[in-house]
Amino acid sequence: MRIFRRFIHIKKIPSLYWGNNERTKGFGTKELLAKLNLIYYPHSGLVHWLPLGLQMRNKIETIIRKHMDEIGFEEIELSSLTDTALWKVSGRLDTNKELFSVDSKFLLSPTSEEEITALVKKTTSSYKQFPLLFYQIGNKYRNEKRPRGGLLRGKEFLMKDGYSFDLSEEAAMNTYHSVFGAYEKIFDDLRLPYVKAEADSGDIGGTLSHEWHYLDVTGEDTIFECNHCHSTSNIEKTLSYAKPINQFHPVDVKYFRTTDHSTLVCAYYPRGRVLDTNFIKNEVDIDLDSDISEEELLEDFSDQETLPSKKFLRIMDSRLSSRSELPEFPILFLSRASFTTLTDIPIVQAIDGEICTSCNKGELKASKSIEVGHTFYLGDKYSRPFECSVIMPETGRQDLIMGCYGIGVSRIIGAIGEVNRDEKGLRWPAIIAPWHVTTIEAVDGDYNELYEQLNENDIDYKLDHSDNNLGKKCAQSNLLGIPLVLIVGRDFPIVKIEPRGKRFTDDLDWKKLYESKHEEFQWTVNCDREGNDVSHSVHKDGAIAVIKSLLKDM
Amino acid sequence: MRIFRRFIHIKKIPSLYWGNNERTKGFGTKELLAKLNLIYYPHSGLVHWLPLGLQMRNKIETIIRKHMDEIGFEEIELSSLTDTALWKVSGRLDTNKELFSVDSKFLLSPTSEEEITALVKKTTSSYKQFPLLFYQIGNKYRNEKRPRGGLLRGKEFLMKDGYSFDLSEEAAMNTYHSVFGAYEKIFDDLRLPYVKAEADSGDIGGTLSHEWHYLDVTGEDTIFECNHCHSTSNIEKTLSYAKPINQFHPVDVKYFRTTDHSTLVCAYYPRGRVLDTNFIKNEVDIDLDSDISEEELLEDFSDQETLPSKKFLRIMDSRLSSRSELPEFPILFLSRASFTTLTDIPIVQAIDGEICTSCNKGELKASKSIEVGHTFYLGDKYSRPFECSVIMPETGRQDLIMGCYGIGVSRIIGAIGEVNRDEKGLRWPAIIAPWHVTTIEAVDGDYNELYEQLNENDIDYKLDHSDNNLGKKCAQSNLLGIPLVLIVGRDFPIVKIEPRGKRFTDDLDWKKLYESKHEEFQWTVNCDREGNDVSHSVHKDGAIAVIKSLLKDM
Repeated sequence: MRIFRRFIHIKKIPSLYWGNNERTKGFGTKELLAKLNLIYYPHSGLVHWLPLGLQMRNKIETIIRKHMDEIGFEEIELSSLTDTALWKVSGRLDTNKELFSVDSKFLLSPTSEEEITALVKKTTSSYKQFPLLFYQIGNKYRNEKRPRGGLLRGKEFLMKDGYSFDLSEEAAMNTYHSVFGAYEKIFDDLRLPYVKAEADSGDIGGTLSHEWHYLDVTGEDTIFECNHCHSTSNIEKTLSYAKPINQFHPVDVKYFRTTDHSTLVCAYYPRGRVLDTNFIKNEVDIDLDSDISEEELLEDFSDQETLPSKKFLRIMDSRLSSRSELPEFPILFLSRASFTTLTDIPIVQAIDGEICTSCNKGELKASKSIEVGHTFYLGDKYSRPFECSVIMPETGRQDLIMGCYGIGVSRIIGAIGEVNRDEKGLRWPAIIAPWHVTTIEAVDGDYNELYEQLNENDIDYKLDHSDNNLGKKCAQSNLLGIPLVLIVGRDFPIVKIEPRGKRFTDDLDWKKLYESKHEEFQWTVNCDREGNDVSHSVHKDGAIAVIKSLLKDM
Repeated sequence: MRIFRRFIHIKKIPSLYWGNNERTKGFGTKELLAKLNLIYYPHSGLVHWLPLGLQMRNKIETIIRKHMDEIGFEEIELSSLTDTALWKVSGRLDTNKELFSVDSKFLLSPTSEEEITALVKKTTSSYKQFPLLFYQIGNKYRNEKRPRGGLLRGKEFLMKDGYSFDLSEEAAMNTYHSVFGAYEKIFDDLRLPYVKAEADSGDIGGTLSHEWHYLDVTGEDTIFECNHCHSTSNIEKTLSYAKPINQFHPVDVKYFRTTDHSTLVCAYYPRGRVLDTNFIKNEVDIDLDSDISEEELLEDFSDQETLPSKKFLRIMDSRLSSRSELPEFPILFLSRASFTTLTDIPIVQAIDGEICTSCNKGELKASKSIEVGHTFYLGDKYSRPFECSVIMPETGRQDLIMGCYGIGVSRIIGAIGEVNRDEKGLRWPAIIAPWHVTTIEAVDGDYNELYEQLNENDIDYKLDHSDNNLGKKCAQSNLLGIPLVLIVGRDFPIVKIEPRGKRFTDDLDWKKLYESKHEEFQWTVNCDREGNDVSHSVHKDGAIAVIKSLLKDM
């Protein structure tokens, strides 16, 4: 107990922190985060942040605040309830199908363009007050029907959303680029490689909109890059045409009904391909009702009594031709007048090698990914309907030029958990890890001097004082994803440092230090067959320098 | 511009920060907070936090975190959406009439006893994991029909809510007392005098429940203190007896029925007094049905067919005597057997000068107040219905003993704004003020040495670099509630310091410093007729010491 009292960093490790690693084998990342009590899922799509998870979240927030403050953005916090009336002004009340309504007057904010534009309009009176640059970090809401991956897609999620108001397009572009730079710093701080995918910027044109992704085979998003025009886009936005070599695909069909229940929609597409109902909705401009099973649906439309009032819409994917053989139509006694057919509509998700619809020339290359950020140049999309304008001394009244900038804060934790994990468990970047170093005493002894040095150097460590044996302690630290394990004891004053955190660079800092210091530090490195450092043995007087050097690349 | 570049604290003062003081005269505190762009009200009962307001809020949160962490509470963050099913388990779905429902499955959390109890039940497996002490700081929701005072009573408001789970009543009491101590430190840090009112602790008995109030004539709450036993309680919980001089009051009556519809409850009380149905519920231990108008009720109980199965309960307030003349009974043909009368039950709210029921001796003194915190010993009120229990090695399975502890974070800002304001505007305690010192240069000059010293001493100052004149600059700083104005120029190196922040002690720190240093600092004090220091003139080399000393008591 002597040691505990002396060190401020070893305050208390509640039992809640530790899962039992024997019981976590084979779990997905979502389950692992819960088993390790970083977070808790009270309900599908919802999250409770437990102490360690919240600390990690706070660390990411600190990074974001730092880089947003640096470029002159000011933090605010808008109410999470937003007035439904504002969403009528922007027109998004009708187009956003995932809004949570509260007491009929309010929505739970999924994003705040409407609120912030109304706020800026009301609180400003002169062009001299601009530019105005705001951000907030808070919960956002989406009535997500299929929550996924715990932190990856939820009904409630933590976002950093930023909004800029400039006096000219040029100034707004400069703001956009400064946010772009801040995002690069934020993602650089997190160490993991990321992809900036250009995104369709709607009304505005140009390329001033980017999605920020982590590439990962488990990712829900698929990014396509065209090998001709190099446009890169999310699968949800990638329309594609068939490869030039046309094939006679076997044809599958899926049935839907429109939300008014009047029409049976029959979507025909090549067997084995993934039908995207959003493509049907967007390309054909109809709303589909997804609350009924196909069996019930066909039974409903087969009812001979109501059949005369029903309509039937057949949609043929662009990959099908007139020679494609369609499945038998499941309903008998149809009137021809109730029957419409649309052809050459791309309604399935693109696959590797199909043709880019942007240039009609190149082939699309697919990668799986997780979107974690979006920067968007908005122009006057919101300032115009909200009449958020200023009077310029020379040119008179003009709309403010806006941008908006999102980062999925909770999603970043879920994504990094997923991207970085391996068979041993999680691996956190040092800057957001619950702590930097797990210290294990293999043999009882007085290691206070070393602990003092860790404290003095702001290296966040925890001593594992449990009854577990050495192997179990290492496994627990690795499972939780702590960047380093420091083992003291057996060969003291030689100590052992085992890196766990993942490195994404070949230019490792420790190798440079090793060149100049390995003799002085009595430093030996144990490498695996691929040449990766598995453990470092070093004299206690060099341990701090080696730990700092290792953490730099994690 | 030279000066701006050198000082990190003078980053940017956006126009949004400043209201126009000529246009704020006569405004209430609620309006003043908005005029000064600390906050913005998008809708009745909702608040947007603007940069300066959010910074003040963050400062209060920092104080709360410090003192909660010190007593071993760990910060978490529960989802703001809570499962309706949990509120059925506790029985509060029916009794809480101000819940916001979302998508039928969820509620916007007004408080988190249900969630935290369900969470602790699910994530713990051994008594060794206890005690567990959690708190969170986040938005809470109440479907408030009459929002009031901006930050004082809203549909969305920021709360610190803490929850403790202990293995025994004794341990839970110790936890309660440690929270009590932390609350004292939190409120002491804010400098304003506060009142701890004992509150009825329901099932538990004893006095282990306290409300924390700021006394203020504009307050919505009323607190009574007994001049004999000094018990202090909220009007909603203050039972009282009549003054010794008995009067023959005219008598009023109100009718209710019990929730099982079997019994008509007739409550008789002195005309002009406020009947409190909670007193009836608690003192007579019956549940009243409030979903029916008195007219319908009497019609129902007058039905001659069902009359034989009905019962009638007459409750006479303790202020009535056998000589009080009761209103005519509204229902005819009553059977005596169906008829019960209870006398001497206190069922109306107390008024100044009535007799305390705790000691039966003292008189009650009423004060208006604003409740800003509540500490509550819960016992097994939630752990029992949620079966949140542990198996103790000796004594077997037992329910955990809980406590809950709230602080209205946003309400504290509204309350301090209200309690501390005067005709010049707001007055913030130094620890939460937007900044400590407004610096004004009456004459151009090089004051960099002084600014450097302010920086080095972590005194948060802003240089007012606007085009306003000296008087206007002082008025703006006073209006916003900055504790001190520092005027440099005219008599430099003598500078002038004008205190604005309110002091609540006679033992002022600056007076002690003055004794020993007034000659060295060339320090003179200008006082008003009541002896209050209106301004300090001091040599620049003593200015930092004087500023620090003044801030200590603000």
